[in-house]
Amino acid sequence: MPLINENFLKLKAGYLFPEIARRVRVYAAANPDKHVIRMGIGDVTEPLPQAVTTAMHKAIDEMSVRETFRGYGPEQGYDFLRAAVVQNDFAARGCDIAADEIFVSDGSKCDAGNILDIFGAGNTIAVTDPVYPVYVDTNVMAGNTGHADVATGEYAGLTYLRCNAESDFAPALPTSHADIIYLCSPNNPTGAVLTRDKLAAFVEYAVAHKSLILFDAAYEAYIMSDAIPRSIYEIPGARSCAIEFRSFSKTAGFTGVRAAYTVVPKALKGKNKAGDAIDIHPLWMRRHTTKFNGISYIVQRGCEAVYSSDGKQQVAGLIQGYLANATLIRQRLTKLGLIVFGGDNAPYVWIKTPRNATGDSTKSWDFFDTLLHQAQVVCTPGAGFGLAGEGYVRLSAFNSKANVEEALSRIERVLGKA
Amino acid sequence: MPLINENFLKLKAGYLFPEIARRVRVYAAANPDKHVIRMGIGDVTEPLPQAVTTAMHKAIDEMSVRETFRGYGPEQGYDFLRAAVVQNDFAARGCDIAADEIFVSDGSKCDAGNILDIFGAGNTIAVTDPVYPVYVDTNVMAGNTGHADVATGEYAGLTYLRCNAESDFAPALPTSHADIIYLCSPNNPTGAVLTRDKLAAFVEYAVAHKSLILFDAAYEAYIMSDAIPRSIYEIPGARSCAIEFRSFSKTAGFTGVRAAYTVVPKALKGKNKAGDAIDIHPLWMRRHTTKFNGISYIVQRGCEAVYSSDGKQQVAGLIQGYLANATLIRQRLTKLGLIVFGGDNAPYVWIKTPRNATGDSTKSWDFFDTLLHQAQVVCTPGAGFGLAGEGYVRLSAFNSKANVEEALSRIERVLGKA
Repeated sequence: MPLINENFLKLKAGYLFPEIARRVRVYAAANPDKHVIRMGIGDVTEPLPQAVTTAMHKAIDEMSVRETFRGYGPEQGYDFLRAAVVQNDFAARGCDIAADEIFVSDGSKCDAGNILDIFGAGNTIAVTDPVYPVYVDTNVMAGNTGHADVATGEYAGLTYLRCNAESDFAPALPTSHADIIYLCSPNNPTGAVLTRDKLAAFVEYAVAHKSLILFDAAYEAYIMSDAIPRSIYEIPGARSCAIEFRSFSKTAGFTGVRAAYTVVPKALKGKNKAGDAIDIHPLWMRRHTTKFNGISYIVQRGCEAVYSSDGKQQVAGLIQGYLANATLIRQRLTKLGLIVFGGDNAPYVWIKTPRNATGDSTKSWDFFDTLLHQAQVVCTPGAGFGLAGEGYVRLSAFNSKANVEEALSRIERVLGKA
Repeated sequence: MPLINENFLKLKAGYLFPEIARRVRVYAAANPDKHVIRMGIGDVTEPLPQAVTTAMHKAIDEMSVRETFRGYGPEQGYDFLRAAVVQNDFAARGCDIAADEIFVSDGSKCDAGNILDIFGAGNTIAVTDPVYPVYVDTNVMAGNTGHADVATGEYAGLTYLRCNAESDFAPALPTSHADIIYLCSPNNPTGAVLTRDKLAAFVEYAVAHKSLILFDAAYEAYIMSDAIPRSIYEIPGARSCAIEFRSFSKTAGFTGVRAAYTVVPKALKGKNKAGDAIDIHPLWMRRHTTKFNGISYIVQRGCEAVYSSDGKQQVAGLIQGYLANATLIRQRLTKLGLIVFGGDNAPYVWIKTPRNATGDSTKSWDFFDTLLHQAQVVCTPGAGFGLAGEGYVRLSAFNSKANVEEALSRIERVLGKA
């Protein structure tokens, strides 16, 4: 029999979202008359922008005629899309990124996992706590960790950068050497954003320590404050120390359409075991062209339309709608006496669970069950994102305004009773 | 600096198709007035079936309205598609495959590469020669090989199963133990098909040796003979020893749309280092749900339409068209005195290069250059697929009938002159 990758056996049983889905399924099956409002998984709910659907319809029509039919495209994405990305997402913000540093893909989750293919064993990996579980799980699969501690669930060999309420959920710099550092701003799950100073400190650390930052900017479109960087490449020096992940999922409502891109600057260097510097860009190019075949031409035309004048206006409308939901959540939960974080430059609100009868913070999964069973509202338990997430839940603003208002009214009734 | 995956440095510089593209680009730039006919890369040329485009237009309309909008779908694919796959591709042919053994993805190339994530180091890998380069390169990246031999280009540690004209390009069984065996039928590049007896012999070998067969059936739609299995699961015992890759690329013209699926039967077992049997299905499930987010809902509706009554008829029309091209290529090159293989149950024709002035077979890349420079026809040099491919070129039947006829007329002129 073929040897399996035993690192997979180190993974803890329940990946967070499947476990949430399971509990919701059980509850819904037992209570078929109850209308459950899902504010757990960060999934968009509003229809695609009209500029996007028009472009995709047109692309399908092109694919219906031999003269304009397109087969395999460039694995890295069509030039028309890479050029639009560079112009709108980078040049417009003063970032020095070239079109051939953009690799279009089907999702940031995929890229954040696949990027590990090009790195060797023995790197020290730093993640924040709380953390988007995919960063951790893909490192476990790649053999970059030991086993999980039975009590804490934390993996041996990983460096956890704690985030807490005192520092507004911004991570501290690593206190020991890290080769690869995952950062996510606006943050999933806490909704916290890294200020320019904070991000500059990480870039400075990475340059000094020759570390690589994997910067997940999937939620950058939610940044309303000009003081907050939307790309790590707004920070001088980042070209030589950072890969950035971007997504159309939360920007243009593409979670079910699938499109993202990753920026791999040509200035990035890794090293071989002998210590010689090796360019990272050609490694990712080789990985991307050998193990991937590009995304649908139809979808790429939809992405391009996101950057059209109509597209930009319609996307801004989507973002404003979700952010208005986040504001509602913040305001009404604050009125209820809850302590909330995030939600002003992010679609997530991070909520401290109320104290229980004995004066302690309610456990995340207990509060999850309370909200599900009593308010029929699905949140995400903070504990699912790491130790520092215990005692918090995440509410997603990705919903219709009507659903958010209904969910908040139910939560008000439940917590009023409690 | 982070350590890079040094296995990438073992890869030979030119992945075959980029090198072809480069030579064509250079020629085309120097000869802008010449019309180059591309019969190299196996890329479809005919427009999408109308059943597919209608279904995709409708799916976009659904995505334009809140009530029918869809965000994240199941990573493994929607039930409607998995059910259609099982019913049409397996149950209809007597194969015992369940819907939850189907994993929908964006491409067979991706799956064939990514599947290695779930296997450990130390497996003995067997590939055929000639071979689709992705099987080899992804094993190099995964560290399953040593370095390439400077003279032959073959990687240390890989087992090559030679295919030659004497055995009609069917591989012989491994003579030493192999843990994982890649098979592709109809074959890319040779166009050869594995007969039921031959495939049964491989299944028998795999069951006896507890090997795993990775069966690439991306071209199964081209099999016209009822005597040739279209799925490895037509062979008793295959459920316990084979993973099958399927694609919509060459069936429904989806190379630019992106859709495929992989079958991972629940009966499959691997082992850990201690020798305990470990189920493979949950490992792939975990990999697929952690590092992938499913394919576009719009594309999945297009895939579903492939199985509609109109879809089946239109796809059959596409296949017949390409196969008619293959027949033309076979017939007219045979008349020229060339020795040809494949092309009756496959879209590829595998051609022995003509003898040169000294009576030897012309080298693949030399014949490639001859066809490009003198006939403006792009083929694929057999040597790019391995040692046993030297002295052959592949012509793809993926083209319009008019282009194929024009290409053949040019080749007739050139070889007539020679």
